[in-house]
Amino acid sequence: MLPVPTIQAFMPPRRILMGPGPSDVYPEVLAAQSRPTIGHLDPLFVGMMDELKSLIQYAFQTKNEMTLAVSAPGSAGMETCFVNLVEPGEKVIVCRNGVFGERMRQNVERVGGVAVVVDNEWGEPVCPDKVEAALVAHPDAKFLAFVHAETSTGALSDAKTLCTLAQLHDCISIVDAVTSLGGVELLVDEWGIDAIYSGSQKCLSCVPGLSPVSFSPKAVAKLKARTTQVQSWFLDQTLVMGYWGNGNGAKRSYHHTAPVNALYALHESLRLLANEGLENAWARHRKMHLLLRDGLTKLGLKFVVEEASRLPQLNTVYIPDGVDDAAVRKHLLEEYNLEIGAGLGALAGKAWRIGLMGYGARRENVSLCLHALEESLNQN
Amino acid sequence: MLPVPTIQAFMPPRRILMGPGPSDVYPEVLAAQSRPTIGHLDPLFVGMMDELKSLIQYAFQTKNEMTLAVSAPGSAGMETCFVNLVEPGEKVIVCRNGVFGERMRQNVERVGGVAVVVDNEWGEPVCPDKVEAALVAHPDAKFLAFVHAETSTGALSDAKTLCTLAQLHDCISIVDAVTSLGGVELLVDEWGIDAIYSGSQKCLSCVPGLSPVSFSPKAVAKLKARTTQVQSWFLDQTLVMGYWGNGNGAKRSYHHTAPVNALYALHESLRLLANEGLENAWARHRKMHLLLRDGLTKLGLKFVVEEASRLPQLNTVYIPDGVDDAAVRKHLLEEYNLEIGAGLGALAGKAWRIGLMGYGARRENVSLCLHALEESLNQN
Repeated sequence: MLPVPTIQAFMPPRRILMGPGPSDVYPEVLAAQSRPTIGHLDPLFVGMMDELKSLIQYAFQTKNEMTLAVSAPGSAGMETCFVNLVEPGEKVIVCRNGVFGERMRQNVERVGGVAVVVDNEWGEPVCPDKVEAALVAHPDAKFLAFVHAETSTGALSDAKTLCTLAQLHDCISIVDAVTSLGGVELLVDEWGIDAIYSGSQKCLSCVPGLSPVSFSPKAVAKLKARTTQVQSWFLDQTLVMGYWGNGNGAKRSYHHTAPVNALYALHESLRLLANEGLENAWARHRKMHLLLRDGLTKLGLKFVVEEASRLPQLNTVYIPDGVDDAAVRKHLLEEYNLEIGAGLGALAGKAWRIGLMGYGARRENVSLCLHALEESLNQN
Repeated sequence: MLPVPTIQAFMPPRRILMGPGPSDVYPEVLAAQSRPTIGHLDPLFVGMMDELKSLIQYAFQTKNEMTLAVSAPGSAGMETCFVNLVEPGEKVIVCRNGVFGERMRQNVERVGGVAVVVDNEWGEPVCPDKVEAALVAHPDAKFLAFVHAETSTGALSDAKTLCTLAQLHDCISIVDAVTSLGGVELLVDEWGIDAIYSGSQKCLSCVPGLSPVSFSPKAVAKLKARTTQVQSWFLDQTLVMGYWGNGNGAKRSYHHTAPVNALYALHESLRLLANEGLENAWARHRKMHLLLRDGLTKLGLKFVVEEASRLPQLNTVYIPDGVDDAAVRKHLLEEYNLEIGAGLGALAGKAWRIGLMGYGARRENVSLCLHALEESLNQN
């Protein structure tokens, strides 16, 4: 037998999470998550799942029957969309203006699809004219995929216009709403979004690890018309829906053991969102963003993204010349228990990402962040 | 805007979980899970992950460097093994003696592999002679895949002998240890297991949603020698290890946002297992099983599995003639808050599965279960 490792209980400090996610979790959500585990086929649990489904539908503003939480993080939600919908050889227009558009392209490649990439600069939104040109140039494209709120840059793209273009060109739209859901306007049915995924750990202020996903009837029809098997067993929605329910009242069948306690947490976080009201939550994110923006501007920090397409919930600013990126972030973490995000990909070492997500979008956080940043920059 | 759903906070009852999993979660694990969320790249979190890795290594009895928790349930752990190791066209001997062997076969098919199925009856262990015959008949087979503890039947297979056969025939072994880990002897390095996965929600008594996985150096070499891309982005271990660490001290890079709080929970449950000691935990499961077995036998219930290959942590018994399966389970759940498992697949409606897993393997549970079952059977 190997030696027994001697390890103490892990006692994390209380951080203030103002990075690109995970965000600060609502205390009610942590409490909900720690309630007793019950069976994944317990009638009471199935009832909770039905409520959860209606809460996800509300958050997405959709009546889509195929709406659920994937039992894994947002990256698995992304893969759920591509792996179920795109068949080998099918063409996908992929918009790339940051890390997550590129990740979409990799997903297309891994399912054997053909990606046609529409590039925009990091920090820019997706340009609808470029997308339209690509749709015209590729009449055989079956999908348009883009990121609503780019977590790597803080840019918001015009999902409504892009989905209208997709419809005009008879494409199914696949939308990354990991950072947008709950933080900015998002109207799945009204905008005609076909497949959408998000994450629990951003503006929902739930624990990380789950991915709300919704497919429109058009996306479901595409899935049902597949001539090839979905390459992932775990993410195969035709199997998963046997557990989440097809809305036909049929008995739920076991697929995998649901992450019971994490689903309690998501239920609670979405319930808090519903109680606040989506429009109020969007307005709160906007209000806190304006306060933060004014303060950051006073500190002489410049935004990476133009005002018109700036995400309220994710503020990306250039690191001033001569300032030590890692030293400032370390100082904030160690002295203030405050986490802000490093730059990612093309912005690594060049920018910070300051999140105001969900429960984190509060005046006290804006205030602390501005004060601590000012002190750190002066000290640095 | 859609109407706001009016939903109350979900207050689950306190059940006693004696089904096939999830099992009763240790109170300390629920407490650990509800500690404050910190960032997935926070240095303190990375330190916790290193400890968690050593705890998983201890539980598996392995020194394998590629040891981690997949951020999704056991089914995703299964898929992690097949999707990373098996390339299209490669032959896999798959042993099938229940639901999960069949699921392995489906995984092989979905990655484009060629499955050669070795069947045993439901309730029987995998027969080494049959496996040897298949290995001889298929010298081009590259893998041997089997389930150590079949959750659908309660049968324990002889993993040591099967892995020795795999080695003799130059095959990589892929082992399902979802229900075995922590409940019965399992020695990954000593037995020469190459790829293994488990689940958090069985004998570890952690919340459901995570899958401990380990690859031997031979499995890692196979992964590195791939000529095709791993078809899943989310489960691609070459990417995931950039986050979990390759043991080279390199800075961790973001892959996906880890399920932070669930990992706290797994850390705590494995710490409790280490504190108890693996051999003591195995002995406790065995002791409680013998008590339960004697009681069930007194009630006239017959085991599906022969004594020699019976799992202590999962006791499958035939439902007596004339007894209403669903009515009894409903009665136990509603009157005693006691969950026992229904039969699955070929045993649906024919057997019950009574779990004694992890924290659930206690004398008070055995006692309650026997008493409540007796009352229910008499009443029925």
